[in-house]
Amino acid sequence: MLTLDYANCLSLRVGSHGIDAARFEAGSELAEAAQHLSGRLARTRGTGWERWRDLPFGAVREGHVRAVKEAAATCRGRFENMVVLGIGGSALGNIALQSALNPCTYNLMPSGERAGPRLFVVDNVDPAYLGQVLRLCAAQGGLERTLFNVISKSGETAETAAQFMIVRDMLKSRLGAGYASNIVAVTDPAKGTMRQICDREGYITLPVPDGVGGRFSVLSPVGLFSACMCGIDIDALLDGAAEMDGLCARPELGRNPAAMLATLLVDMGSRKGKTCHVMMPYCNALYLLADWFRQLWAESLGKQRDVRGDEVFAGFTPVKALGTTDQHSQVQLYREGPNDKVFCFLEVESFEGADVRVPAGLGVEATKYLEGTSLARLLNAEKRATEYALVESQRPNLTIRFPKVDAFHVGQFIQLWQVATAYAGLMLGVDAYDQPAVELGKQATFGLMGRAGYEKFKANVDKVLTPTRYIVEG
Amino acid sequence: MLTLDYANCLSLRVGSHGIDAARFEAGSELAEAAQHLSGRLARTRGTGWERWRDLPFGAVREGHVRAVKEAAATCRGRFENMVVLGIGGSALGNIALQSALNPCTYNLMPSGERAGPRLFVVDNVDPAYLGQVLRLCAAQGGLERTLFNVISKSGETAETAAQFMIVRDMLKSRLGAGYASNIVAVTDPAKGTMRQICDREGYITLPVPDGVGGRFSVLSPVGLFSACMCGIDIDALLDGAAEMDGLCARPELGRNPAAMLATLLVDMGSRKGKTCHVMMPYCNALYLLADWFRQLWAESLGKQRDVRGDEVFAGFTPVKALGTTDQHSQVQLYREGPNDKVFCFLEVESFEGADVRVPAGLGVEATKYLEGTSLARLLNAEKRATEYALVESQRPNLTIRFPKVDAFHVGQFIQLWQVATAYAGLMLGVDAYDQPAVELGKQATFGLMGRAGYEKFKANVDKVLTPTRYIVEG
Repeated sequence: MLTLDYANCLSLRVGSHGIDAARFEAGSELAEAAQHLSGRLARTRGTGWERWRDLPFGAVREGHVRAVKEAAATCRGRFENMVVLGIGGSALGNIALQSALNPCTYNLMPSGERAGPRLFVVDNVDPAYLGQVLRLCAAQGGLERTLFNVISKSGETAETAAQFMIVRDMLKSRLGAGYASNIVAVTDPAKGTMRQICDREGYITLPVPDGVGGRFSVLSPVGLFSACMCGIDIDALLDGAAEMDGLCARPELGRNPAAMLATLLVDMGSRKGKTCHVMMPYCNALYLLADWFRQLWAESLGKQRDVRGDEVFAGFTPVKALGTTDQHSQVQLYREGPNDKVFCFLEVESFEGADVRVPAGLGVEATKYLEGTSLARLLNAEKRATEYALVESQRPNLTIRFPKVDAFHVGQFIQLWQVATAYAGLMLGVDAYDQPAVELGKQATFGLMGRAGYEKFKANVDKVLTPTRYIVEG
Repeated sequence: MLTLDYANCLSLRVGSHGIDAARFEAGSELAEAAQHLSGRLARTRGTGWERWRDLPFGAVREGHVRAVKEAAATCRGRFENMVVLGIGGSALGNIALQSALNPCTYNLMPSGERAGPRLFVVDNVDPAYLGQVLRLCAAQGGLERTLFNVISKSGETAETAAQFMIVRDMLKSRLGAGYASNIVAVTDPAKGTMRQICDREGYITLPVPDGVGGRFSVLSPVGLFSACMCGIDIDALLDGAAEMDGLCARPELGRNPAAMLATLLVDMGSRKGKTCHVMMPYCNALYLLADWFRQLWAESLGKQRDVRGDEVFAGFTPVKALGTTDQHSQVQLYREGPNDKVFCFLEVESFEGADVRVPAGLGVEATKYLEGTSLARLLNAEKRATEYALVESQRPNLTIRFPKVDAFHVGQFIQLWQVATAYAGLMLGVDAYDQPAVELGKQATFGLMGRAGYEKFKANVDKVLTPTRYIVEG
């Protein structure tokens, strides 16, 4: 089970920059609020936009897992490469699971040593990037042995649509009519542009479930299919999420890790000016989980208005960092710059068989203290030293501790933050499930790209960004 | 030549969140200050810790380029893999150059298509990470065809020392006495622990020049050797840096991109509460340049005291983001959350031969507007749309425009930010070249690892982080 250690957020450790321990005690205002919210979340779970909460349970889970495993069984052995076409919530979870649970050298391994095809998640329309990935797939294994997993609920996200149009055309011209078997689409099961295309062309499809927003979809087929294809234990992932969910429903603040996380971060964010929330794993595999967290935390809580329509400009800026690496890049700022951050360390207790011993024999006095130790011991000592150095500068921080990095504990981590986000939304009084500010940029893009009906947006852009002389050039 | 477009930082675009254009005009206070500082930097350049500024010029450059090319010529063809062992300034530049100037699929290409060996930059002591890379190298090409490029001025950085001890022992036991020819060390040319080891064991060495701090070292052999090995045009890189340096010495604020960048970011950071500085390339290749920037900006300016010793808690939090990807993750927060950021977009005018056309033929009305366009056009339209959406929310932003991504323009980018950092340090009154707050964590690590003489640090850590009951568990 993951544990949450928050002692370094308390005023007994970091003075006025932290929270008094008494404020968390049973019967305190914060404890009462958390209990109230746990009841409220119990009543709304599985309804409206909180249907993500059911993904690790019961018939919903069984249906998804069965469909994902069936699709994977159909594809297994046929493909050397797999390319996910998606963006935002249709990519960040896939990237996080793969980097957390497969080796960093996975794509470089010969196919006999990998648990599945090479995996590329192309979450941008940078032409060089897409072109390089497609050329590599064509050269190694060939396009006929490359599976494209397009993920889009509507099919109208400009980036994914453009990628898909390119890939579909290329597959059709190279593979002919049978090209459809190189595509698995994750999309709306009933309606929308992508659904129509799938029905017409006969792709295998998997559902983006109703009531599950993009950033809460990693435990649905959106995230599960590529994970399953690459040998990740999706049952253990969902088991972990389910177990964590139980803890996150507890009414007692001191025993509920999601309520505690939300309470700490919202309280320090709103009352102590700690508006940057730094996620800093001491573990390379967990680093890209921070990108998944960044979307969840930023897009859910970053809101100009609360649910009553009052201006609040809520939200916190998620920042990702990596220990020990960023000790040599960011810790100078973290200790001496503005005291506007809370640090969330991720620590791994055991690297199991992967630990590496540091041998003797260099014959140098200055590094003698390292002889006979192990890299895991050094890594965790550095983490403890950094924690200490931050406390000495009165910088609040907390630690989420993984017994080890496996699918079960990564599933726990995902559900922990998803439920914490739901709590934090209620605490801030904002709708954690919408993203109204993203619309204007989409409409402006449509206008600039000449989509019919969006001409006025192009005119607005051109007017607002009228060329000026405020340019420095050579 | 890179251009800097800062119109969206002005109050005429973003109201009270921006700066009045009149404040930049010739004769204004900001223009006078910039002129004064350009004179001051002209007097200190090439002295003290500003010797980085000479790296692209004259005898210093010639000496480095000759030594780097000689070492590369000795190694060329002998190695299938190259592993950089370094951390912070001894890694971030190497990673940035490789990801900017070689394909994202570089390591996956067969050796005949790559310009050099596979490159791995192992900038952490995560045992799983190092172990995976070493196993991959042993399996593909073999350890005898793997070059280790250890980068450490002193040789006493704990992470690099531990990695090096492991690798050296492994090479000695597998390759015997000849193992030394698999190591190239970049280190102090005259003194220190690593220097002694190199002299004793006979490695090829390249210098970390005096007066060049880690975060300003990418244009020295620290960054140049791995780049040269992987086919990057280091002459063009230095040419670009040299040309940009000339612009950054101009006395006129309106014609000096480094002084203008520093003026904008320091003024908005200090007077308008814009303390998060987001670097957001619309180009995957440029994304990891943001990690190099993060160290430069955070570690140079994040200081508790100014040069007179007064408390200032200066500095800004650098944040990296990627367009269009993070439009679907961060832009909701960027538009509606706290207005505490300045956005620095990186835009690429031409992807040259790499652009990809979006074909017709899908037969769907909703995506018809994309038919016949290109990904580069879509990418840059999305960037313009985001710029517009941010301006509509009064969020200041600026654009650094690359005519194209090549070594020459990446060199310009590097020198631009290095000189901008020097200006910003002077404007904030802090020493841009030290990092005093990093020491305590190093000492505490020594203490926790049992290094003789550091016992009191271990005692302090244990006292401050005494175990508590403030843990949420299962």
